[in-house]
Amino acid sequence: MKAAYYTGNRSFELREGNALAPAKGEVRLEVAFCGVCGTDMHVFHGSMDKRVAPPKIIGHEASGVVAEVGEGVTGFKVGDKVAVRPLNFGAPHPFDRGVEYVGKNMKFIGLDVQGAFQSSWTVPAYALHRLPDNFDLKYGAMIEPLAVGCHDVSIGSVKAGEHCVVLGGGPIGILIAFVLKERGARALVSEINDDRLKMLESFGFETVNPARENIIEKVSSFTGEAMADVVFEVSGSAAAAGIMTEIVCVQGRIVMVAVHGEPKKVNLHRFFWSEIRMFGARLYEAADFDEAIKIAATGRIPFEQLITRIQPLEKIQELFEEIDRHPAGMKSLVDCRTL
Amino acid sequence: MKAAYYTGNRSFELREGNALAPAKGEVRLEVAFCGVCGTDMHVFHGSMDKRVAPPKIIGHEASGVVAEVGEGVTGFKVGDKVAVRPLNFGAPHPFDRGVEYVGKNMKFIGLDVQGAFQSSWTVPAYALHRLPDNFDLKYGAMIEPLAVGCHDVSIGSVKAGEHCVVLGGGPIGILIAFVLKERGARALVSEINDDRLKMLESFGFETVNPARENIIEKVSSFTGEAMADVVFEVSGSAAAAGIMTEIVCVQGRIVMVAVHGEPKKVNLHRFFWSEIRMFGARLYEAADFDEAIKIAATGRIPFEQLITRIQPLEKIQELFEEIDRHPAGMKSLVDCRTL
Repeated sequence: MKAAYYTGNRSFELREGNALAPAKGEVRLEVAFCGVCGTDMHVFHGSMDKRVAPPKIIGHEASGVVAEVGEGVTGFKVGDKVAVRPLNFGAPHPFDRGVEYVGKNMKFIGLDVQGAFQSSWTVPAYALHRLPDNFDLKYGAMIEPLAVGCHDVSIGSVKAGEHCVVLGGGPIGILIAFVLKERGARALVSEINDDRLKMLESFGFETVNPARENIIEKVSSFTGEAMADVVFEVSGSAAAAGIMTEIVCVQGRIVMVAVHGEPKKVNLHRFFWSEIRMFGARLYEAADFDEAIKIAATGRIPFEQLITRIQPLEKIQELFEEIDRHPAGMKSLVDCRTL
Repeated sequence: MKAAYYTGNRSFELREGNALAPAKGEVRLEVAFCGVCGTDMHVFHGSMDKRVAPPKIIGHEASGVVAEVGEGVTGFKVGDKVAVRPLNFGAPHPFDRGVEYVGKNMKFIGLDVQGAFQSSWTVPAYALHRLPDNFDLKYGAMIEPLAVGCHDVSIGSVKAGEHCVVLGGGPIGILIAFVLKERGARALVSEINDDRLKMLESFGFETVNPARENIIEKVSSFTGEAMADVVFEVSGSAAAAGIMTEIVCVQGRIVMVAVHGEPKKVNLHRFFWSEIRMFGARLYEAADFDEAIKIAATGRIPFEQLITRIQPLEKIQELFEEIDRHPAGMKSLVDCRTL
């Protein structure tokens, strides 16, 4: 088997190795495709070396095929297509209140432990979600980010008919918009990149470019002056942290999806005045993967258009460098099959 | 009747007037006592002149006795003791989502329209809550701030056995702590004023002085490393906006009670990372007044100790000046009875 190790300093190194036999409760996969997440780009840029401790195999948006089943594993057999929920639950801590997917000792597979940019990968069986037999494994790599979208929409308790604003039209923002559509809610997506705006409009979403338009007025006209029921902050920008409180209704909900590297100025007076609520949203639960697979299986998500490029594992270095040159693209996949 | 008009520039003027007969749906009260809120101090300092438009009778933490009942009013008779929920509901707006107590067109009685620093006061009957016949009218002026505490604790969905931290031990912070106690939750109150700390400890509350102690360590030991289920931000300080996210558990709740005059730096990454939730809390609903009266009627709130001073309406100017000289005191009341 082959594995791409991130070795620090914007570099990957391809190494040959031996497939790791699954221990009790584990499954070995032949990895099919694995998407490149914004987090992987942060790793590539060296901003997460302390956590990642290179050399490390990163990658966590994976599809694959079951190759070996460890002792005690039921429900999976060789040949099954799967998507992977890359969480390694750790020892419970009182701080977690039983919420293990964001628990103190949870290890993220693909950052804290070896990830999916390799051809053979051994993971806990509880991390697997079966894909339909006829499911395209390329699209299988989109299940993880789609599950993020499902989780974010669930955290926002979005109901059919509600008006939502998504701040940031990158891969996660777009997938949130699609999940909103599936739930019967209306989405207005705020984005400053023209290519992304065009794509969003081609999918039928309403858009606003806050660099050119007054977003408050746009949300007001989108909602008939009622303002948004739910705002998803997916951009990580200071501008979004500033505007999110100005476009939401009484007791409206803000879902904090973005990773804000440093503290941002927030209008806490607006929280008080209109009893706004804000909900942090990170990762996903098993149910979010189930929903993502169900939605994906309808064929209503235009994955083909959301996948900007695919490169084989051997070209992972070039792929990451290309993403750096074209950061506004949508999803890039690594084809981890060595056949 | 007599009324104290705030005339701008830290000044009150006492004027004689005629009692206003109640219109349909209204009740005329002989005001008994009215507390001085932090907001009234802001008015006194001139920071709210634009909204208040002096000359204006302010004051909204009132108790009184029914003196005249307008046409169509049921459930109240002359002589009834009442507390007043000082909200004048306006025309509904789609922005409000039916939440009329923080609705766009709601007028606050005692800021937007004439308040309680007068001996005779005419208000909508729906704003009244009956007090028990034997209820001390001095304590009746404490129902409004206690209802704020009830609302804040309800917004925080506090359950029995939960560990809560209250940031700020002024009148509202202390009343929140008492409501938490009534609900079977434990409260740790953070406060930097020594007199307030002594009072809080005399009531049996655990305290922390963040100017002298490490509040994160204190919350950790208060909770057995589990950190707080709910944090109430009542201080309005930048320090509290910074620390609130560091002392709360996974999916823990922050209730934003304080009025933050300008945007503050908030650690949004912590919201994401531990899926923290924040809930703005303002004013109250009828149910909060009902709960406040029920709690007050138990006799378990030491109102006598929470009332720092009482002055007659004639001395309102001196009273406000005295509060300015001793801002760390608890509640000051105006005795509006002219007998």
